Amino acid sequence: MRLSVRRGTILLFCVFGFYIAVRVLYHMLACPGGLTRARRLSVRIRDGNRTQYHYSQYSPVVFVGGVPRSGTTLMRVMLDAHPLIRCGEETRVIPRLLAQRHSWRRPGEERQGLEDEGVTQEMLDAATAAYLLQIIARHGEPAQVLCNKDPFTLKSATYLSHLFPSAKFILMLRDGRASVHSMISRRVTIAGFDLSSYRDCLSKWSSAIESMLFQCTMVGSGRCLTVRYENLVLQPRSTMQQVLRFLDVPWHEGVLHHELAIGKPGGVSLSRTERSTDQVIKPVNLEALTRWVGHIPLDVLEDLENIAPMLSRLGYDPSANPPDYGQPDPEVVNNTQRVLKGDFKPPAHLKKISEDEKSKVLKRKD
Amino acid sequence: MRLSVRRGTILLFCVFGFYIAVRVLYHMLACPGGLTRARRLSVRIRDGNRTQYHYSQYSPVVFVGGVPRSGTTLMRVMLDAHPLIRCGEETRVIPRLLAQRHSWRRPGEERQGLEDEGVTQEMLDAATAAYLLQIIARHGEPAQVLCNKDPFTLKSATYLSHLFPSAKFILMLRDGRASVHSMISRRVTIAGFDLSSYRDCLSKWSSAIESMLFQCTMVGSGRCLTVRYENLVLQPRSTMQQVLRFLDVPWHEGVLHHELAIGKPGGVSLSRTERSTDQVIKPVNLEALTRWVGHIPLDVLEDLENIAPMLSRLGYDPSANPPDYGQPDPEVVNNTQRVLKGDFKPPAHLKKISEDEKSKVLKRKD
Repeated sequence: MRLSVRRGTILLFCVFGFYIAVRVLYHMLACPGGLTRARRLSVRIRDGNRTQYHYSQYSPVVFVGGVPRSGTTLMRVMLDAHPLIRCGEETRVIPRLLAQRHSWRRPGEERQGLEDEGVTQEMLDAATAAYLLQIIARHGEPAQVLCNKDPFTLKSATYLSHLFPSAKFILMLRDGRASVHSMISRRVTIAGFDLSSYRDCLSKWSSAIESMLFQCTMVGSGRCLTVRYENLVLQPRSTMQQVLRFLDVPWHEGVLHHELAIGKPGGVSLSRTERSTDQVIKPVNLEALTRWVGHIPLDVLEDLENIAPMLSRLGYDPSANPPDYGQPDPEVVNNTQRVLKGDFKPPAHLKKISEDEKSKVLKRKD
Repeated sequence: MRLSVRRGTILLFCVFGFYIAVRVLYHMLACPGGLTRARRLSVRIRDGNRTQYHYSQYSPVVFVGGVPRSGTTLMRVMLDAHPLIRCGEETRVIPRLLAQRHSWRRPGEERQGLEDEGVTQEMLDAATAAYLLQIIARHGEPAQVLCNKDPFTLKSATYLSHLFPSAKFILMLRDGRASVHSMISRRVTIAGFDLSSYRDCLSKWSSAIESMLFQCTMVGSGRCLTVRYENLVLQPRSTMQQVLRFLDVPWHEGVLHHELAIGKPGGVSLSRTERSTDQVIKPVNLEALTRWVGHIPLDVLEDLENIAPMLSRLGYDPSANPPDYGQPDPEVVNNTQRVLKGDFKPPAHLKKISEDEKSKVLKRKD
């Protein structure tokens, strides 16, 4: 069979036509900023093996939060131990940016002033999403699933769910008496909480968790999962199975042994300043579960229904000291015995720096 | 001539090979975030005619600034009147973000704390650039050259010049006595300036302009141009010719008649809340040049060398009331006569809202 010049020319035209069609389609559908995705954000990062990861506001970002001292760090290190998930230290800057953003969302003079200057809410959303994506994407080695843990971000869950349409949220719940005892005994400064008063802290805990739970409900159960700290430490396997199913991430045994992944490449990175670091270097254990018992003043215990109405709403019996949190898995009992024997000390670099931190605190007191 | 099947097949392979090569090259060089531009930011915006504009941190953004009441609004509306430049209202959010960013740049506990959490200065720079680019790109209709005017951004000129390597800066200079008389007589609140004291305001003016001039010098004369307000109103043509040459933008007569472009598509947009709006609705004129004369307390006038050392350093004779600012162009003299006759009133929507603003101010005083 032979091709005439005419047929050859037609064939050439067809091929070029096909090429042009592909290019146009590519621009319309795939390229960031194309016709259909004019507002697509894009961040590309390479890992140590030069594999490129591409993130956009449609990436499956996970936000972990809750009232501080509710197991948010434990949850994030367990997730961080999963090879497909990176869930690093607190960024601190994300809650600040969100606070600033919210001050411009509230109807009032400030918002009106911005609108008079042609600064719309849509512009501010685009800018906020671009900022958050850069911080989240660059905060450590890239991974298939990125995760952020700044406890109070869950107060902005509905806003974040709008900026990041594929994001999911994990809200940690814990018996407020335990959270408050932890912040007071460990002197963890939290804006708005008066650490000299169990009454004040329990009341603030109740409002904070109420507001986060409301946000979580608004986002919906498909995208926001509540996890009890007590379940996480008593039955870590079944709890993490549920969490990973929720995140559409395959099961990995590593999440039950986060302490083995600390400091390893692709493993768990810890901060020398965070107040939970000396706890999460240990395996999941029951040390902190009921430490609060016997520390809450009697007048506060007697008035808990009024001070912290969220306790009973979340199912934590205000009159039980402690309530029955459930039965531990055998591996957790074993972990706890090893922890109590003193098998887990902070690694040299974290320990050393903790002492520096302590001396700083002492200096501030002088 | 006839083509054999073999030749046809070879031709087809060549065409496909060419297509694949183009795709690979396109990905490597042109697509935002490709191999060679892994950190490239990208914002795409369409104008009313569906023309797409593409902005990145390498776009030729212009930052206009200076001490408030130094002609920054006049400069920005004259630039905004140029068909290739969009220079809109103040955003207010850009200085706030920069202030927050600077608090994390200063060596100290806060910066150390962030570094302990793995939040690096590079991450914060990437996030800040992404935020600013979104705000600047979306703040009005797109144009070949984007421009931002928030007066105090010039205090961050070196930082901005690092985030935006092709950005240029215009620093407005003005006789500090005139700037201060304007802020006091028009009650323009500026953080840190005590409007009840000429002495305090002149001293703050001097430090502010000193810091901005230092930043401008650090950025270098190729990227930062100082423009005197007095030259802008006395000789607008030669001054704007110099400005546009500096910006590599062709001359356009429109910049000398910004008042005709107000509210026109692609023209000048004004804010109802900005304090200069009632002035820049008029053509360039000499009304405000020497209005300060006779208003500065004698004890301040006698001590000007100490209170505001930048006056003489900038060439404004502290002992002359007023100094000789130079000779006006005939068109400016003509404009001034028309302004004094009352030919230029605020357009209805701006006027009405100014009165609303006034009533708000009155309410606050009650």
